[in-house]
Amino acid sequence: MRAVDIIIKKRDKQELTAAEIEFFIRGFTNGDIPDYQASAFAMAILLNRMTAQETTDLTLAMARSGQVLDLSKIVDIAVDKHSSGGVGDKTSISVMPMVAACGLPVGKMSGRGLGFSGGTLDKLESIPGYRVDLSTEEFKKQLKGKGIVLTGQSLDLAPADGKLYALRDVTGTVPSMPLIASSIMSKKIAAGAQAIVLDVKTGLGAFMQTLDEARELASLMVDIGRLAGRKTVALLSDMNQPLGATVGNALEVIEAIETLKGGGAPDYVEHCLHVAAHVLVIGQRAKDLAEGRAMAEKSIADGGALEKLRVLVAAQGGDASYVDDLSKFERAKFIEAVKASRGGFISEVHARRVGEAAVALGAGRAQKGDPIDHAVGFVLRKKVGDRVEAGEPLFEVHANDDAKLAEAREAALSAFQFSDESVPPLPLFYE
Amino acid sequence: MRAVDIIIKKRDKQELTAAEIEFFIRGFTNGDIPDYQASAFAMAILLNRMTAQETTDLTLAMARSGQVLDLSKIVDIAVDKHSSGGVGDKTSISVMPMVAACGLPVGKMSGRGLGFSGGTLDKLESIPGYRVDLSTEEFKKQLKGKGIVLTGQSLDLAPADGKLYALRDVTGTVPSMPLIASSIMSKKIAAGAQAIVLDVKTGLGAFMQTLDEARELASLMVDIGRLAGRKTVALLSDMNQPLGATVGNALEVIEAIETLKGGGAPDYVEHCLHVAAHVLVIGQRAKDLAEGRAMAEKSIADGGALEKLRVLVAAQGGDASYVDDLSKFERAKFIEAVKASRGGFISEVHARRVGEAAVALGAGRAQKGDPIDHAVGFVLRKKVGDRVEAGEPLFEVHANDDAKLAEAREAALSAFQFSDESVPPLPLFYE
Repeated sequence: MRAVDIIIKKRDKQELTAAEIEFFIRGFTNGDIPDYQASAFAMAILLNRMTAQETTDLTLAMARSGQVLDLSKIVDIAVDKHSSGGVGDKTSISVMPMVAACGLPVGKMSGRGLGFSGGTLDKLESIPGYRVDLSTEEFKKQLKGKGIVLTGQSLDLAPADGKLYALRDVTGTVPSMPLIASSIMSKKIAAGAQAIVLDVKTGLGAFMQTLDEARELASLMVDIGRLAGRKTVALLSDMNQPLGATVGNALEVIEAIETLKGGGAPDYVEHCLHVAAHVLVIGQRAKDLAEGRAMAEKSIADGGALEKLRVLVAAQGGDASYVDDLSKFERAKFIEAVKASRGGFISEVHARRVGEAAVALGAGRAQKGDPIDHAVGFVLRKKVGDRVEAGEPLFEVHANDDAKLAEAREAALSAFQFSDESVPPLPLFYE
Repeated sequence: MRAVDIIIKKRDKQELTAAEIEFFIRGFTNGDIPDYQASAFAMAILLNRMTAQETTDLTLAMARSGQVLDLSKIVDIAVDKHSSGGVGDKTSISVMPMVAACGLPVGKMSGRGLGFSGGTLDKLESIPGYRVDLSTEEFKKQLKGKGIVLTGQSLDLAPADGKLYALRDVTGTVPSMPLIASSIMSKKIAAGAQAIVLDVKTGLGAFMQTLDEARELASLMVDIGRLAGRKTVALLSDMNQPLGATVGNALEVIEAIETLKGGGAPDYVEHCLHVAAHVLVIGQRAKDLAEGRAMAEKSIADGGALEKLRVLVAAQGGDASYVDDLSKFERAKFIEAVKASRGGFISEVHARRVGEAAVALGAGRAQKGDPIDHAVGFVLRKKVGDRVEAGEPLFEVHANDDAKLAEAREAALSAFQFSDESVPPLPLFYE
């Protein structure tokens, strides 16, 4: 078998066999197949696409390019939850304690923020001491002992995916459904997932800007799950405006904790209950969504979810007293409430603009490896559909720098659109 | 400007500007743009194509990636002739002395054989001493003094093309019309051509197997010529069967010389006269094809063309006595006449099979840099349309090795197809 013949086959729109895909990915991972062949291959895949079966074979080949976690001796069914990324998405931090409190053990490997989109690991590091670098052994031990883990992806999971992603980034081959879907699913499968709930975001602040694109990606990932023998469910949720009331690391963790205490922005609470219900159903703890939702609600009402969060934070070396005393979180030096200059109805809060403004404040990274300011960000007081009077607070800017505050204020203001007519709120989920 | 954005633009089927193409080719040539970006770019071009304007810009960018020869002070009009390659194609060796004898100075840089297709340089090296590595200064001096040059491409002409071709070869991006056309035309333009006659081969022994493909390539190269301000004419000629009676280096040179002495296979002679007429017209020495053809015929009849060949060989250090005494050429140890096992009409002499059999005899290279056996090859006694009786000679094998002779005999026999019905001869030119 020769790499160039596999490229030519895909170039000529033929379907590749599992053996061909395995050969290419193995050679690419160990360096036998050079980057210049992999990038031509990626471009051929982007332009000529792959079938669901080819994408599944690619997913499995990338998953097997490194260690594949076997959690079958630790949990009945290893459940994972994945969000395609967005602005203000702190869902895992609320949902995982909820489902763990309902008796479903969950261990999850999360990512860092990229571009305008935040990352769960960055958020969790707002809690002093919290470790996101658990070893595989630590991961397994904590999942067994505590029933909840939320850490970073260890380096040896799906190394082919990491290598291919870096190459795609500089060769114009990122926006390919088969490549995106296999990248996500290979990491889930390598991390041992047997059942997966996918939260695919769509809208102005999502990587999939249209519902059609999001639906295509979701459908492809569900196909991969099915063909790879993993139970997979995909939700399509809104990311036109930020999720919940907060954008920024510590601010989002605070909102996630408040939610477990019975507070939280209504859209965020609703989003979490819906996702939790799906996780409980796929994890075989609830017979249907209604029961799953009731269980999730109860985990908040009886304090079980909050307790699981304390357990999680303490198990990973974090200061669990932060969970009970939110005033301990680092606060920004400058907090300014920005008021509406006009009355009307909010018709848009452009998620991507808010996300980019948060990154500019220091909440995210311009480049990989940049430091993060955990305290800065936004608290949104009004969202799409809300009525606002001139002079009413629209949002708060939390900043550690005068000049950045002024810039962020203007950037966030430009994200708001007003209408004289009443505007319906955005749906949380599309399908 | 960033390389990745140029790749993305072509990926998204947009037309690139001359500045973008120039930026990419310059960066690729000097190493700023790595191979993995160039290969993704090449795949995007192959799958999404390029307009004639883009292909012209690519051609000019590659031509300018190194030295561009200026022949305007040496000749009135610098004429070049290019064949897209085939089996038994020794046209340049006859045609250049013919047109030079008609008063049109011609300097040409030729290539080596690749795969089943022979190369003019390899053929010329059958004459001891013949140098194909003239420097640019030597090229210019000889063109001015002798009016005829036939040498190899110097390394600094269109280096981007050489680098890109090597990459295309291993990334499945060879068969792209814009990339093939720009590769050919960039070398012609870098070599100083102001007027170009393109002989595009089509058929079983050509890179363009169908007439449609050959026509598309020819038309694209004529467009490039027009947009780049070069007079360009393209002929579509047959390469289903080998051209002329010989395949193999010394054997082909002998046939080319015999042609200048008034001999040669009829199809080859006709081919040469037609090409020479076009070169004389485009070089403004003949007012039309009829006059050009008459001039070419006269150059054979009066010995002018043969004399120009002697001048060429001597000027480049070769032993010119070979031109007059063909028995001096190295002969193979074994020469076997292979007879027809049946009677009938020849319906096919598969050019590619004959070419591959010649390579297997040692006339060509399996890999770049392999040595060549100049003496070996085939002499064809029958061609398509000819009537043959059982036991009549079909072809001769010239070999230096017993085992190879037997293999070559079988391979060449398999190239012949017979028909009981009479078969018309193949056309020499399609358009």
